[in-house]
Amino acid sequence: MNDREPARRRFIKKGVALAGLAVVGGIGFTNGQTGESGLPETHSKDLEAYGERSHFVTSVRIPQFPAPDPFGLERHMLTPLQDSVGIITPSSLHFVNAHIGVNIPNINPEQHRLMIHGMVDRPLILSMADLKRFPSVSRVHYLECNGNKAKPWHKTLQEANGKTSCSEWTGVPLALLLKEAGVHNEAKWIIAEGAEDNKGAISLPLAKAMTDMLVAYGQNGEPVRPQNGFPLRLLVPGFEGLCNVKWLRRIKVTDQFYMTYNEFDRYTSVDPKTTTLEQGPKSVITFPSGGQRLPERGHYQISGLAWSGGGAVRKVEVSTDSGRTWKDAGIQSSIHRMAHARFGMDWNWDGKEGVLMSRCTDELGQVQPTVAEFARFWNKTVKVVLAPYPEELKAHHNYIIPWRVDRDGNVRNGLA
Amino acid sequence: MNDREPARRRFIKKGVALAGLAVVGGIGFTNGQTGESGLPETHSKDLEAYGERSHFVTSVRIPQFPAPDPFGLERHMLTPLQDSVGIITPSSLHFVNAHIGVNIPNINPEQHRLMIHGMVDRPLILSMADLKRFPSVSRVHYLECNGNKAKPWHKTLQEANGKTSCSEWTGVPLALLLKEAGVHNEAKWIIAEGAEDNKGAISLPLAKAMTDMLVAYGQNGEPVRPQNGFPLRLLVPGFEGLCNVKWLRRIKVTDQFYMTYNEFDRYTSVDPKTTTLEQGPKSVITFPSGGQRLPERGHYQISGLAWSGGGAVRKVEVSTDSGRTWKDAGIQSSIHRMAHARFGMDWNWDGKEGVLMSRCTDELGQVQPTVAEFARFWNKTVKVVLAPYPEELKAHHNYIIPWRVDRDGNVRNGLA
Repeated sequence: MNDREPARRRFIKKGVALAGLAVVGGIGFTNGQTGESGLPETHSKDLEAYGERSHFVTSVRIPQFPAPDPFGLERHMLTPLQDSVGIITPSSLHFVNAHIGVNIPNINPEQHRLMIHGMVDRPLILSMADLKRFPSVSRVHYLECNGNKAKPWHKTLQEANGKTSCSEWTGVPLALLLKEAGVHNEAKWIIAEGAEDNKGAISLPLAKAMTDMLVAYGQNGEPVRPQNGFPLRLLVPGFEGLCNVKWLRRIKVTDQFYMTYNEFDRYTSVDPKTTTLEQGPKSVITFPSGGQRLPERGHYQISGLAWSGGGAVRKVEVSTDSGRTWKDAGIQSSIHRMAHARFGMDWNWDGKEGVLMSRCTDELGQVQPTVAEFARFWNKTVKVVLAPYPEELKAHHNYIIPWRVDRDGNVRNGLA
Repeated sequence: MNDREPARRRFIKKGVALAGLAVVGGIGFTNGQTGESGLPETHSKDLEAYGERSHFVTSVRIPQFPAPDPFGLERHMLTPLQDSVGIITPSSLHFVNAHIGVNIPNINPEQHRLMIHGMVDRPLILSMADLKRFPSVSRVHYLECNGNKAKPWHKTLQEANGKTSCSEWTGVPLALLLKEAGVHNEAKWIIAEGAEDNKGAISLPLAKAMTDMLVAYGQNGEPVRPQNGFPLRLLVPGFEGLCNVKWLRRIKVTDQFYMTYNEFDRYTSVDPKTTTLEQGPKSVITFPSGGQRLPERGHYQISGLAWSGGGAVRKVEVSTDSGRTWKDAGIQSSIHRMAHARFGMDWNWDGKEGVLMSRCTDELGQVQPTVAEFARFWNKTVKVVLAPYPEELKAHHNYIIPWRVDRDGNVRNGLA
């Protein structure tokens, strides 16, 4: 089925190797005749103060529930992963979850404060300027909503898994702030609270806070976007998205788990005794994926993203025969812990039907499951795949999404 | 002069440690009274398809030459480095050089072609779709214009050094394409040409092309921006900015250096015999920098960016006493070769006058020079610093920019 020709890979099948081409024109001021590149019309507004994309680029977020949505209030926006390159998600395309009752606060950063209190020696109230006096770190981390669940009726990767994104986050390690406040020995939990209408809050283990949580004010080189918590967001690397409290305004240090709105609500898988907030290994093929089309037989680059809440991606395998055989893909980006990694593999499509899959193994040796393995593990064979929102199943839906390539080159959801 | 207190660092000088603060309110649905965060007015347009910044964030590029500029045509846009966090420059804020006679081409990517010809067995003409069939890589690299020269009359870091930016670039290694074309043994140079009006072209060593040049179509997770070469840009990591040909449409493989427009013009330091296109080690302090103000004595975080065309940043030192003593700064970001790195150092400002400097050492052991060292080396003591545009001096102006902190906390250019 696969790809590498012994001596030389021929990526381009036809019409592009021009053996008889006369070398044309000069270099420099001459009006070269080669490679006509569209009309170089000028538009000087391209030199604006805050630049824009080419008008030929139209990739956008789409709502998870087209208006009017079934609940009337939830407004989740999905990242167009199928168009992504590299590992950074442009902030303008970062997924957004806006839950029932949550409007985006319009926060003046000059007035914003973060309070750290509870079981500490010295409660703190910090302005944004105060925070910037602490040493910062910049780290690349993914964020994924635990509701990122591929279903059989999803047509595109964006619909199926558009609730994961990856950014360079800049902020202050929470451990530094907690040390400044002086945490009591008996403390075990923190309760993090945002400034939105319903004061979304969540209980998180203090041990994680002391390890790698970030109080982040920067995203991809500029202030965190309003949809992602401007001016301050809690980053909890590798934990389910909801833990990453937006519009962060309060951290209370406690010796117990609190049943806050978010634990009460359907979103988290937290159990005060067995914390399962950490997400498992996962990967998606971004090209070719549902709704895309292979125009002809020949060489293609299978491309995708892999990540894990358990740490760094150690290996990504790709199958082009529905999981019967697997080959190691190449990692084509930097590898960061709890971050998207870009993988790729050459593939020579022979024009036959095929099913493409990718499988991530992380630094802990955890392996991404197939749907069947996932369902067996959770003992919910039918509901996992077919129920619209099996919220009672509080798991990271990290099963493999198969993409089916038809003879005509059309690619569609293999869960169907 | 400096900073670390033996037991505990106290970053916050006053008014924020609230020993007697009553812990208030509940968590969850209660109307918490803590940390009033501005008014959470709602604006649902924040869930647009392509998101925007907070309206409180106003950092923008500024033109190098305020209109009307002295030459009437050059329109360079400078990155607001003083507001930067982390190492990624938002694509909307990436610096832009638009030289005399160069308008931004409005290229339809469907029509764009890259030709590779000259001393090759199989000349190629590649569409964007063809290019995406090759294995890609994503790498973080800086780009800096060699005209990024701090002068005594520059008031801010943006004015003084706003022509450096850093992105995650995605594309195909040029070496792969050249192997596909079959380069002749006698070949020594490539001539790279863009699609702009004057067909900007430049001669580059073939050895560099076979090492790490990228034919890049992606920038920070989306297509390269028009101002930066949409749909295709040549990335020449660590070489002066001009080498990174925008709107790339042609690569000719040759056995000799060509005197193209750009060699003829004043911008490059290329010498066909001794290639000096590679830039040296450099760093800038972004905070505190010219035009900023320290509101009071106490702890601050000196923050900045370091990079080198010679590879990875090995060390950054910071001086707060005008270069008499130096201390190692911490590296607070990932380190990539030929990329910005973020450094930081705690500093306890005692309210006295001081001069802040940073100094980069790269993996080759090269050390960033002071202005005096730079001038001595180039034997052009006066012109380097005082001449407006000493274009005859074809060097990477990587000398240290000192920032002078006055007693009132105002920060200004120490070259003055």
